[in-house]
Amino acid sequence: MKINGKKYRTVWMEGTDVKLINQLLLPHEFSIYTSINYRETANSIKTMIVRGAPAIGGTAAYGLAQAALEFEGMDFISFKRHIGEAENLFKSTRPTARDLFHALEFVKQRILKKDNVASAKKEAVKASAEYAHRSIELCMRIGYVGEKLIKNGDSILSHCNAGSLACIDFGTNLAPIRVAHLHKKKVFVYVDETRPRNQGSLLTAWELEQEGIPHAIIADNAAGYFMSGKEINLVITGADRIAANGDVANKIGTYEKAVLAKENKIPFYVAAPTTTIDLNIKTGEEIPIEERSPDEILSISGPDESGKIRKILIANKHSLAKNPAFDITPAKYITGIITEYGILKPEEKQIKKLFGR
Amino acid sequence: MKINGKKYRTVWMEGTDVKLINQLLLPHEFSIYTSINYRETANSIKTMIVRGAPAIGGTAAYGLAQAALEFEGMDFISFKRHIGEAENLFKSTRPTARDLFHALEFVKQRILKKDNVASAKKEAVKASAEYAHRSIELCMRIGYVGEKLIKNGDSILSHCNAGSLACIDFGTNLAPIRVAHLHKKKVFVYVDETRPRNQGSLLTAWELEQEGIPHAIIADNAAGYFMSGKEINLVITGADRIAANGDVANKIGTYEKAVLAKENKIPFYVAAPTTTIDLNIKTGEEIPIEERSPDEILSISGPDESGKIRKILIANKHSLAKNPAFDITPAKYITGIITEYGILKPEEKQIKKLFGR
Repeated sequence: MKINGKKYRTVWMEGTDVKLINQLLLPHEFSIYTSINYRETANSIKTMIVRGAPAIGGTAAYGLAQAALEFEGMDFISFKRHIGEAENLFKSTRPTARDLFHALEFVKQRILKKDNVASAKKEAVKASAEYAHRSIELCMRIGYVGEKLIKNGDSILSHCNAGSLACIDFGTNLAPIRVAHLHKKKVFVYVDETRPRNQGSLLTAWELEQEGIPHAIIADNAAGYFMSGKEINLVITGADRIAANGDVANKIGTYEKAVLAKENKIPFYVAAPTTTIDLNIKTGEEIPIEERSPDEILSISGPDESGKIRKILIANKHSLAKNPAFDITPAKYITGIITEYGILKPEEKQIKKLFGR
Repeated sequence: MKINGKKYRTVWMEGTDVKLINQLLLPHEFSIYTSINYRETANSIKTMIVRGAPAIGGTAAYGLAQAALEFEGMDFISFKRHIGEAENLFKSTRPTARDLFHALEFVKQRILKKDNVASAKKEAVKASAEYAHRSIELCMRIGYVGEKLIKNGDSILSHCNAGSLACIDFGTNLAPIRVAHLHKKKVFVYVDETRPRNQGSLLTAWELEQEGIPHAIIADNAAGYFMSGKEINLVITGADRIAANGDVANKIGTYEKAVLAKENKIPFYVAAPTTTIDLNIKTGEEIPIEERSPDEILSISGPDESGKIRKILIANKHSLAKNPAFDITPAKYITGIITEYGILKPEEKQIKKLFGR
């Protein structure tokens, strides 16, 4: 992605450092976060300096390579134990996204093919770079596949952020929109604010501004209004995990928008690389849903007029809050899944066929 | 309603002053706003010191009485012109709610029955007090009618605020919940935050806390999650205006929750006095929808840790925002309308029968 005219990725590695665009400060401040060890990298996933399923995957891949480089000594058994510990730490950061587990497995398998510490370290770095490269390529392919669904003049609803910032680059749900814009199609994006963390109004809106794509932020409550008023004619979201039957786990509120789209006969697409599909999960009901802090509902932070970041109360102080971070959209509400291989029907038979099962 | 153990109404009159609970400061600060003339009272509706359809109606009724008292001289023709001017000012404050127009008509008709300024002034004060008294009585009746729908152990979704603060007292959608609690039924209220103005997390949560009714605030995005998880088994909202065919205009997001309730086979009730029904409006499509400032989406105010009210940016600064304040819920999504006369089916035949047409 280009930021103020300069090319960037969401996450990359420099020597033994993992570098990240600090998404906690965006869009108010653009700053690069440098993590000097794998524990710090794991923590950057937990504290959401980086977020979005593919970006978390990429960060975990680099983090595992970082863990490999940090190991001192030549004992391969101890090295493998060390890698196992790092892997477990990364697994404990965020429970819902599939890519995290996929990335760790990819790098670990490559490490385990070696038989000594020195070559395993080299391989870890190589594997993590390959993982990142492949992940970006998947996003670009999703962009070109999905672009065919977008007609000139379309108004598209986007929920949460599944743009470049949620990936290593290029995005999933924003990728087709990006390509359509590149191809000079006229598009307008309705950006769901996406409470409670406002990834839509903060990150997606910022990305679209950087790309010069026309858009408007709306309250999550207003998506139905614009659908029933025929002002939205296509919905594209990302996905954190997809079950074998096509059920999709994604940011809280995705289910609501999917039901509303179906009711208003508006196509509802999920854009995600096939690495998001977890064949070990039969249906959405098996996907663990992260419950986050009530504080995300009761208060919010942002810059005041002087630019100083302030945390303010936006609810009745003494009330409880419940804060599930994701929800499950059953396959029946999904028109199709935009993957790197083409548009997939969210059906078990189709999905298994794709995986050769 | 009782606030810190003392009885209050949302709006009342003292001499020539209109007194209002300042809802812009709640729940962080409890303070009474004194309006010393009708223009200030009209402005208090516009700036949302008072909000909620029945409360706006009550305020307009008192405001018109205030306008009558302000008139100097004895010329009845000039007096009537003055009343007409005041009426027009109140009509221009908020376009969506039906009660505003109803209240103004009620007081004006009573004024016009008189033939001199002195007796018209007395009648205006009497009529506005009667209007307020009747409005509270309607809410109480709605409470007792609606309470029958609530079973022991129910979890009820509430959208926006249609409690005491939205009325002169007692509330509409919170009235049945209040009565059920009074009758020792175990209830739990899921409180939609209700972006962009957070009337749910600020006002409804505060009211429920004052009454000791168990509740949790949720992001508007999470209502579908709790519905599909069978954690919500009843929805009750208020209404700003009801068309002759049963379509309901209410706070933005009501339509979304109604569609989700139907999809999850959860009863969806609207609680409103029959004064909310506008027989001149055939269907929801004819109801004007207020478009509010983009600033409500892009920024938000609240107290910081020291208690000082700060306004902070919560979105990408340079993005557009669209901010419809209400939406239309077609009658087919509504199980019933809880009125002072009983539960009404949202059908034109039923509604017209009630009005003897």
